[in-house]
Amino acid sequence: MKRILIVGTGLIGASVGLALRANGFTGEIAGTGPNAETLKIAQERGAIDTWHASADADAVAAASDVILLAGPVLAIEDWMQRLAPLLGPHQLVTDVGSTKFHICVHAHRLYNALNTARFLPGHPMAGKESGGAALAEATLFQNAMWLFTPTNDGTPSPLEAEWRGWVAKFGARTMDLDAARHDELCAWVSHLPQMVATAMSALLEEKLADAPELNAIGGRALREMTRLGASPYSMWRDIAMTNADPIADTLHALEQRLAHLRENLKTPGLRDEFALANQFRKRRD
Amino acid sequence: MKRILIVGTGLIGASVGLALRANGFTGEIAGTGPNAETLKIAQERGAIDTWHASADADAVAAASDVILLAGPVLAIEDWMQRLAPLLGPHQLVTDVGSTKFHICVHAHRLYNALNTARFLPGHPMAGKESGGAALAEATLFQNAMWLFTPTNDGTPSPLEAEWRGWVAKFGARTMDLDAARHDELCAWVSHLPQMVATAMSALLEEKLADAPELNAIGGRALREMTRLGASPYSMWRDIAMTNADPIADTLHALEQRLAHLRENLKTPGLRDEFALANQFRKRRD
Repeated sequence: MKRILIVGTGLIGASVGLALRANGFTGEIAGTGPNAETLKIAQERGAIDTWHASADADAVAAASDVILLAGPVLAIEDWMQRLAPLLGPHQLVTDVGSTKFHICVHAHRLYNALNTARFLPGHPMAGKESGGAALAEATLFQNAMWLFTPTNDGTPSPLEAEWRGWVAKFGARTMDLDAARHDELCAWVSHLPQMVATAMSALLEEKLADAPELNAIGGRALREMTRLGASPYSMWRDIAMTNADPIADTLHALEQRLAHLRENLKTPGLRDEFALANQFRKRRD
Repeated sequence: MKRILIVGTGLIGASVGLALRANGFTGEIAGTGPNAETLKIAQERGAIDTWHASADADAVAAASDVILLAGPVLAIEDWMQRLAPLLGPHQLVTDVGSTKFHICVHAHRLYNALNTARFLPGHPMAGKESGGAALAEATLFQNAMWLFTPTNDGTPSPLEAEWRGWVAKFGARTMDLDAARHDELCAWVSHLPQMVATAMSALLEEKLADAPELNAIGGRALREMTRLGASPYSMWRDIAMTNADPIADTLHALEQRLAHLRENLKTPGLRDEFALANQFRKRRD
């Protein structure tokens, strides 16, 4: 890998650039994306060497060994579509999208054939409360889990092996899993918590926004259970859109569970729920 | 106030004893409760001067100016019942129970009459992840909110005014509100978050307990949204029992909200939910 193009230099994309440099990558790091301001910040931070307007990115992509697609899932899919015809089997495209099944369907159609580029679907479980190149860090992936959901069973190409090597150098742990399983697990451990925090925050905004006592009374439990209510729709729209069925399943299961708990506030059924919940926490402590 | 009896010397009761001493109280602090071990720890920590087995507590209560009832709500109500016939109008009973309407119904029946003791219902919004006298601290109430839900409109008795003075010396802010309103607000900002964390933890324990990937994938969102799953049933049983209707209302509202969100994962309705949730968080930051 002598040249990498990072498409989308927000928090994750720019952090990858910084992590490459910090871990000894001496090749060229180019950047492109929809927003010139973001690209300039990424360049000032040292995350990319050169930046290219989205309209000029085709030639840069064609001349890169690795293309990393960062940003919301549907934007990643747009770039997969756009770049596929320009690239060849000696090149690797990889991504950092939050959902993987939808992306893998596209990858199967557009990549990993004899005369197309290779595609390695990835998902670093890292982030911050706010995004943006300004908050990027070379150490963002240290001790984080970087998941891969490869679509082909064959041996990895040399570039794919090299990319996995860089991810390991970033300090991330890696795991390969099936794309559908990835999306199902992420629905439970990430998307469900987000949707619950959003629903609870929205409900409280409607019911109590004007209650002067609220700020006085609300403590850590409230803060913690609604913190994710601040998450931006712009990112979650694509996750909800591309993982709707697994998310709907988890929401439906929780609705039923809450109804069960509600019907058992005064019965020993409540004890059983607390016992199961205690057990879940104990396993994790 | 020359002598106070603290009934129940767990985290809150023992912290009150330590806070009294730290803020210059020179009278006697007696302690009683169901558990001799807890009482001994409270005494060793300096939270109480003397401890008395529950069976011997009547005489100590009769000879105290203020009796503070700490512990789960139903235990507080048992003590209210037991002590009322032993006490007179020159004495003050106050409590730290988590729900207030149920307690106020008892207070109205048993206290605040011409020939009975006064009762001032209180609720310090303070705590820790674990309870017990060993974790008690004189500073537990600093900057915490200590709510009162007085049942009588008359002027406070001198002892009541003195007790409010001690609470202020502990560093707590205070607010008076209607008992039913207290319970409704606490259902929204404290009991609903707890029940949601319990339901989500119990659900995950059933669905994913054996998934080896879970510990690898679950991040801050999962930890945060299930932390309260570790809360003990022993405390929450009484809260659920004595505030069942308001809690059921909040749970039912959230169930409907989650169903609405589930049906709008791919529509602009999701954007509206995120906008409301963002607004709620913004008000609080």
